[in-house]
Amino acid sequence: MNFASDNIVGASAPVLEALVRHNAGAMAAYGGDDITRRIKATFCDLFERDVAVFFVATGTAANALSLSAAVPPWGLCVCHREAHIVDDECGAPEFFTHGAKLVGLPGTGSKLDAGEVAALLRRLPQSAKQMPPKALSISQATESGMVYSLREIGALGEVCRGNGLSFHMDGARFANALVGLDVSPADMTWRQGVDILSFGATKNGCLMAEAIVVFEPALAEAMEYRCKRAGQVISKGRLVAAQLEGYFAADHWLANARWANALARRLADGLTRLPGVRLAWPTQANEVFPILPLAMDSALRRAGVAFHPWTAASLAPGEAVAEGERLIRLVVSFATEEAQVDRLVEIAASATARHAADSPV
Amino acid sequence: MNFASDNIVGASAPVLEALVRHNAGAMAAYGGDDITRRIKATFCDLFERDVAVFFVATGTAANALSLSAAVPPWGLCVCHREAHIVDDECGAPEFFTHGAKLVGLPGTGSKLDAGEVAALLRRLPQSAKQMPPKALSISQATESGMVYSLREIGALGEVCRGNGLSFHMDGARFANALVGLDVSPADMTWRQGVDILSFGATKNGCLMAEAIVVFEPALAEAMEYRCKRAGQVISKGRLVAAQLEGYFAADHWLANARWANALARRLADGLTRLPGVRLAWPTQANEVFPILPLAMDSALRRAGVAFHPWTAASLAPGEAVAEGERLIRLVVSFATEEAQVDRLVEIAASATARHAADSPV
Amino acid sequence: MNFASDNIVGASAPVLEALVRHNAGAMAAYGGDDITRRIKATFCDLFERDVAVFFVATGTAANALSLSAAVPPWGLCVCHREAHIVDDECGAPEFFTHGAKLVGLPGTGSKLDAGEVAALLRRLPQSAKQMPPKALSISQATESGMVYSLREIGALGEVCRGNGLSFHMDGARFANALVGLDVSPADMTWRQGVDILSFGATKNGCLMAEAIVVFEPALAEAMEYRCKRAGQVISKGRLVAAQLEGYFAADHWLANARWANALARRLADGLTRLPGVRLAWPTQANEVFPILPLAMDSALRRAGVAFHPWTAASLAPGEAVAEGERLIRLVVSFATEEAQVDRLVEIAASATARHAADSPV
Amino acid sequence: MNFASDNIVGASAPVLEALVRHNAGAMAAYGGDDITRRIKATFCDLFERDVAVFFVATGTAANALSLSAAVPPWGLCVCHREAHIVDDECGAPEFFTHGAKLVGLPGTGSKLDAGEVAALLRRLPQSAKQMPPKALSISQATESGMVYSLREIGALGEVCRGNGLSFHMDGARFANALVGLDVSPADMTWRQGVDILSFGATKNGCLMAEAIVVFEPALAEAMEYRCKRAGQVISKGRLVAAQLEGYFAADHWLANARWANALARRLADGLTRLPGVRLAWPTQANEVFPILPLAMDSALRRAGVAFHPWTAASLAPGEAVAEGERLIRLVVSFATEEAQVDRLVEIAASATARHAADSPV
Repeated sequence: MNFASDNIVGASAPVLEALVRHNAGAMAAYGGDDITRRIKATFCDLFERDVAVFFVATGTAANALSLSAAVPPWGLCVCHREAHIVDDECGAPEFFTHGAKLVGLPGTGSKLDAGEVAALLRRLPQSAKQMPPKALSISQATESGMVYSLREIGALGEVCRGNGLSFHMDGARFANALVGLDVSPADMTWRQGVDILSFGATKNGCLMAEAIVVFEPALAEAMEYRCKRAGQVISKGRLVAAQLEGYFAADHWLANARWANALARRLADGLTRLPGVRLAWPTQANEVFPILPLAMDSALRRAGVAFHPWTAASLAPGEAVAEGERLIRLVVSFATEEAQVDRLVEIAASATARHAADSPV
Repeated sequence: MNFASDNIVGASAPVLEALVRHNAGAMAAYGGDDITRRIKATFCDLFERDVAVFFVATGTAANALSLSAAVPPWGLCVCHREAHIVDDECGAPEFFTHGAKLVGLPGTGSKLDAGEVAALLRRLPQSAKQMPPKALSISQATESGMVYSLREIGALGEVCRGNGLSFHMDGARFANALVGLDVSPADMTWRQGVDILSFGATKNGCLMAEAIVVFEPALAEAMEYRCKRAGQVISKGRLVAAQLEGYFAADHWLANARWANALARRLADGLTRLPGVRLAWPTQANEVFPILPLAMDSALRRAGVAFHPWTAASLAPGEAVAEGERLIRLVVSFATEEAQVDRLVEIAASATARHAADSPV
Repeated sequence: MNFASDNIVGASAPVLEALVRHNAGAMAAYGGDDITRRIKATFCDLFERDVAVFFVATGTAANALSLSAAVPPWGLCVCHREAHIVDDECGAPEFFTHGAKLVGLPGTGSKLDAGEVAALLRRLPQSAKQMPPKALSISQATESGMVYSLREIGALGEVCRGNGLSFHMDGARFANALVGLDVSPADMTWRQGVDILSFGATKNGCLMAEAIVVFEPALAEAMEYRCKRAGQVISKGRLVAAQLEGYFAADHWLANARWANALARRLADGLTRLPGVRLAWPTQANEVFPILPLAMDSALRRAGVAFHPWTAASLAPGEAVAEGERLIRLVVSFATEEAQVDRLVEIAASATARHAADSPV
Repeated sequence: MNFASDNIVGASAPVLEALVRHNAGAMAAYGGDDITRRIKATFCDLFERDVAVFFVATGTAANALSLSAAVPPWGLCVCHREAHIVDDECGAPEFFTHGAKLVGLPGTGSKLDAGEVAALLRRLPQSAKQMPPKALSISQATESGMVYSLREIGALGEVCRGNGLSFHMDGARFANALVGLDVSPADMTWRQGVDILSFGATKNGCLMAEAIVVFEPALAEAMEYRCKRAGQVISKGRLVAAQLEGYFAADHWLANARWANALARRLADGLTRLPGVRLAWPTQANEVFPILPLAMDSALRRAGVAFHPWTAASLAPGEAVAEGERLIRLVVSFATEEAQVDRLVEIAASATARHAADSPV
């Protein structure tokens, strides 16, 4: 069983079918085809306004290209210190922005607090010796599986507007956050001040489909050139567009996300019922972060369950991983089955039992 | 009928089938899966030696990343002045190399001559005011549809070795060139001194499958980091690897290229039999570049044939496109049908007939 | 005798005196001092309008920083194919612009023709595959020692305005061009549409004083950050400002340039009176480009005269350097003495005499 | 009285005299002159080995160019989190390295501890998602005016060697640190494993003279090109070389530094004798960082003393600036006079007296 990430599975059936369906026939290359045109219109419908959409190959590219439009080479981008753009993209933001700097703030659950962002902005020196702040980037859902509320996003949007910052959202798990909040795409983004969005669809059902969705038109102006010079304009554009057709049809994407989130809750509930298990952060999307006894961690590994240990850096103040404990991440995808979740909980439970049995009376 | 390019079609059947076949099940992400491992071994078999292979999303990325390993930011890369890297990638080489400069030489059929490259190198000033030459890049097949012979590649390889240059080959149409020469991949590359290759599979049967193949180990050292920071490490790596499995199985890729090349020859033969038609350059791969009467160009357009006009900049000395003529490019792909080729020739022929009929006696 | 360049001498007396005079006492660093403030005001006076001024260490930095404000990383900068920014700055423009591309046009005397620039702009393809033109850069005086007339600059300015291009002038020899035309700084720059200027003072009397003068305010917005991150904000700012005080006082700079230009004309006149000597380009500033017999070239070298051979690439159509001839550059500076010029002509003349004597009757 | 920095004064007399002395006559430009050659030899003598030396205009350029040779665009450079390269260079390191990332560690007195650096290196993840560590940079003296001992530098050098890191020293106040330790340049640098040094001479007596001194030959290989493309090759190279001649002659530079350090100690002693004053960090070079009562801070300002408030971020654990206190930086230069130091202490003392008088009994 593989709970390592949501990119360890292929495409969901409707997505794959759309890909196969649109394989035949000649179409204009480089996104000049009709499917791409239709899907771009779908994005406008989804977001209830005109948006500029650019399809790229990876979430890293979506993030880095977004930031390159939002931050000049001599500017700062404020973000969480454990943001994916800081920790997991090998310097892509620095590469695409030509040297802009990411300023990482702490925050429980990898979330930024509007007040703390404002405080940081106030204490930044104002001189040409220091790079000026130009953008804010948040992850929705966060790297700790939490979801910003509309109010929280709106407050960050206010800080951005008040300080002349562009506002970027890394939506690698956009759908999971969306159904977690049960709100509309427009409400979760531009209505709260978001200017540019990395819209991820790969993890939630596609094989490879990532989009940059631009709400602030100025940020879209040169994006076509940016994408092309980054080698991110897919030659056979139908590849991405067709997947997204299957992804959006009949709200398949929302169904996928709901399924994953529901199973994540089931998993969280199952685990937290076990003695010695608690959650590092609440389960608000499709990721579960239990703190569990070492014995349970070992039992899961022995049983062949794949997953990652996780950093405790964004625990709530006062919370800690004790000796004899382990903080791990379990990711549930659209393709995870109920039985797999239940089996995982069972294995964990057996470790507890065994552990109890092994303990001296 | 669409002869605009070889990227206007989807995947060939075996490629699509492999993609579908490998969609199910959990696999390590980011190229850690078994299919990717097997395909990398296949590359070693194909090239009869150890090679480092990196999969990227586009040919532009493959070229620009290759050049970034071959040329430092302050170096020159010699190439043909109409090379794809010069004209069609919106500055991707300059972006990925952090500012290296492409020095474009002229040459009939978009081919570089070893003697002329050597002469250029001799006349470049030797001072820190001028960027030093560090790499040579050729396209095989060229932008004019011609194919370098092994001897020609070898001579360029000699010049590179003698001058401390890395040697890059843009193989967007590698398979077409290969079957055009009827040689082995090893003979067409590293045995002639090629250090790094952009291996294109998208145009010849895949939906999206491009590889950087590195023969000179030093150029591979940091490539993993380069790819990651460029947003070119595909999350669900099976996407590319599965396609390539279908591509290579039972020499499907060679069959595809042979088909396209044969039809291109058929097209060239058909057209040159018509009065007033001659070839700008010999047809050596899957592209045909006829110089034809304006009336024929119009007739083709009227009949809905899609194709591109082409630049006359690399015609042989003395050759020219006269008034009343047009130089066009017709690209044949693995998916083109004999009947389409014949129909195109028919349409062209009818224009000649009509033109003849219209002429005053 | 050294006619190799105008940067082979130190500072002129008034410049050095000002430097020494302002050495004592505490002053704010990084250009916050009063001399710098005064000199910035002097620039506004000289150019008869508000200008933003930034002092940098080298002409290369002035050019590259100017271009970085004028051209985005994915843009083209049109210039002469022998421009200093193309040939002599080791890729500084590419470095500072983060990858923009210089497109070099031919032109007699290293001058661009407005009509030819317009024609180039019309034939550039309009697609995201190709970098869009964003700036034009000219050298005044040119690399061939010629000076654009106001009408010629104005015509180029028109082309820029009509095509959305920023207009940069490399004024490494600004003063020599200015007195060559006998016009005002305002007339030679922004009144003809120039947006940003590299104002060189080093060659014409300073030890190191180069300024970026910005007429189009948008191009100045981030310049302070650009300069700082480029390591171009001189810590003890008085160094540059003090020199410029001496440079501008009592029109010393114009006197220096007039002297050099007059001696250059004297040199040109002296040489062209000799048999077998003609000018490659008219002498319009402080550089002389004679085409002379090999024997004369040898005689000068033997006599210890330092100078550079020069490229014939920008000769007028039909003109050429014959076998037995050499094209050389002789640069006259503010510090050159009349006697040195006359002595050079004498040496050249003696070679002719000797050559005549050696010739068979 | 100005204690704001050591770059608020001009050149010391011997430096200025050398500059004036070498102003006359023709010399090869761009560092091809004889003075430059002699000074480069002087550096080899000073460092008791062959070193490659490159002169640049600013300390920022020296640091950023050094780092660009030491760290690839995808690499990390470990440094103190308050290092000048992090805080005061507006992203120059990111610009020159093309995107490398600075990883800032805490440390009392802005000093890095070898054990903590080693611990950081051990806990960095090893994957292509994360930038690999490639260099270490320290400031000698530090931003808190402290000086690393030879043993401490050597320990850091060991960590570098053991982990494949290049070792850079920012020596903006190299001379002050050197005489502070009373050791040789060789002992303080390459004998402890330093690979590349920013050698600052501007603050300690020059108007503008900064050098990159390279001990590890591989780091020097492309430096000439790096300097040129950064616009850092001073055209009239004598400007820098002549200053350095005056700087090094008769150990003038060491005398300057000894003077400044001695006065700094005098200042520190004078201040700490006052009630309510203590040092944030020991005075080991030419900077004093007193923590003093607000009233004293105000008195100094009222008396027109120029200085900067300072950050408390690198105080020793347990130490803090209380309410009613202020942490400030006072910089003493070669040009500071004893009387100025004494006068400053007097003003401070009077504030204490007044404050005492004002206090309720």
